[in-house]
Amino acid sequence: MSAEIVPLRPRDSAPSLAPMMALTASGMNAVNSVILERMQSEIPLIPALAGHLIAGGGKRMRPMLTLAGAALCDYHGTRHHKLAAAVEFIHTATLLHDDVVDGSELRRGKAAANLIFGNPATVLVGDFLFTRSFELMVEDGSLRVLKILSNASSIISEGEVDQLTAARQIETSEEHYLKIIGAKTAALFAAATRIAAVVAEKGDAEERALDSYGRNLGVAFQLVDDAMDYDSDAGEMGKGKGDDFREGKMTLPVILAYARGDEAERAFWRQAIVGHRTSDEDLAHAVSLIAQHDAVSATRERARHYAQRAIDAIAGFPPSEAHAAMVEAAQFAVTRRT
Amino acid sequence: MSAEIVPLRPRDSAPSLAPMMALTASGMNAVNSVILERMQSEIPLIPALAGHLIAGGGKRMRPMLTLAGAALCDYHGTRHHKLAAAVEFIHTATLLHDDVVDGSELRRGKAAANLIFGNPATVLVGDFLFTRSFELMVEDGSLRVLKILSNASSIISEGEVDQLTAARQIETSEEHYLKIIGAKTAALFAAATRIAAVVAEKGDAEERALDSYGRNLGVAFQLVDDAMDYDSDAGEMGKGKGDDFREGKMTLPVILAYARGDEAERAFWRQAIVGHRTSDEDLAHAVSLIAQHDAVSATRERARHYAQRAIDAIAGFPPSEAHAAMVEAAQFAVTRRT
Repeated sequence: MSAEIVPLRPRDSAPSLAPMMALTASGMNAVNSVILERMQSEIPLIPALAGHLIAGGGKRMRPMLTLAGAALCDYHGTRHHKLAAAVEFIHTATLLHDDVVDGSELRRGKAAANLIFGNPATVLVGDFLFTRSFELMVEDGSLRVLKILSNASSIISEGEVDQLTAARQIETSEEHYLKIIGAKTAALFAAATRIAAVVAEKGDAEERALDSYGRNLGVAFQLVDDAMDYDSDAGEMGKGKGDDFREGKMTLPVILAYARGDEAERAFWRQAIVGHRTSDEDLAHAVSLIAQHDAVSATRERARHYAQRAIDAIAGFPPSEAHAAMVEAAQFAVTRRT
Repeated sequence: MSAEIVPLRPRDSAPSLAPMMALTASGMNAVNSVILERMQSEIPLIPALAGHLIAGGGKRMRPMLTLAGAALCDYHGTRHHKLAAAVEFIHTATLLHDDVVDGSELRRGKAAANLIFGNPATVLVGDFLFTRSFELMVEDGSLRVLKILSNASSIISEGEVDQLTAARQIETSEEHYLKIIGAKTAALFAAATRIAAVVAEKGDAEERALDSYGRNLGVAFQLVDDAMDYDSDAGEMGKGKGDDFREGKMTLPVILAYARGDEAERAFWRQAIVGHRTSDEDLAHAVSLIAQHDAVSATRERARHYAQRAIDAIAGFPPSEAHAAMVEAAQFAVTRRT
């Protein structure tokens, strides 16, 4: 691996996911075929419920990362299609269970599965997708991939419980928050990217480089997601605006606004987060406090730090279309508005 | 494998699990150590919630079957301890999610985890245990075992969705019911027993024999569980009496009483199962109708058929303490009252 410095923004036009989508387009068709085929079951409720979420779109970032990582490693086989589908199934299972846990009403701009199909079916179909993901990995047959993805899955579920425990805890620190998003989001980004190096039979250095790229990208993505939930300028998002506020989640914008606020402001935050005072008026006040303390832009600034680390992590790979696409994806992660 | 005929009840005293418990006692100590060690997490809610259910007892039938199967195969290593713990984690995860799905109030005679810790934590800790079970399997490193247990897990979750879909469907047939319990219960009994032959490096015939023993035993166990929920003579059980009735589950006692009933009785069953008319008085009437049509004893008779098939499935193994214990466990399965 040779050193190469890539600036965070190499051009004037806004960074986009388009190069990564172009790079992985034909592979993603194969992945989507696996997803559609393997979410089937003779129990009609299973494809109906899974399809509701899966057809609802989403960026499919995680399987795309597996494919982009494989391209970066100059891998030309097809094993990674099944594994990318397995990664997406893990993610989908997590979303379904998240929606039950959070009592979500919206997901990807549509009614959440739990609202349409009920909590029981949503829990069980999440379980089904999770078991299917392991079946796909076992079919591939790499114990190294199984180890990476089973560890990641375990860390994700620990992170979800940690997040649940931290909800409505006004004293949650930035460190604790970073630990939670490192587990619930970044672990799967890291694993999804890392397994590409395993499939391509690259060495430990490449594995670690891809892991680091995915992990830092995941942190950046989650930070920006959490920033957008309070961004007074942002457009509509897939998930219901202000969900984090109403659920009492201590995300970084709130942690920073609370830390930077005066006593009256801290009293407001305590009433909102601990005391469940989260009317639309309260949300508007929260957004204004966060704007006043630049907590959204500070959160985005933190995200830029992780995006830069992601870019630097893969600096040792030779220039390629894949490399350029992965760099721009990291730039997109922190500039995106939806 | 040589043929050997074993009568269903070789003695006068009531069959018991004691011989299987004695056979597996020291192995189960090792399994319990793995369970306790691997349910730990630095997130305190995880061991608290998992421990509530795991410390609550239960027979630990499934890991015991792995150990008994290994003894039957004359295996003297220790690999199966970790795998037996993995099996119990899958089962525990299923119980936690079941309790959320059913809105259970009692489990193993104690308040169900969802009542104490809430649905969100119960869902997420179930996920955690499930991912831990895969980590344990990956550590063992047998792709064959991974395949057997990931397939079984997938079938279980399909069976759970099937059961959910069939709830309150008065026209559920005995065939459909057998398919559901074959998936949600017998698949894990089969896999738990089967992997013993894999670990012992036995051939395909032994693998299939142990699978068949476990599968038939699982069906017998579930039939008797379902019979006991309506048994007017039975003592108290761990789970709340009449739960199946209140949840509108079409178990075999109800299927048979409905099939054997006259029009007035069928109208009662429709009101109860479809129309949610399940007061204590309705439950008492249901129990009396089931007694009148011998539906509990018919269900137990069906169970005897499967127990006999379980016993015959392992008839080819040479006589041993393990063999005798497994035969008596099948006899116990159908004569037990708790």
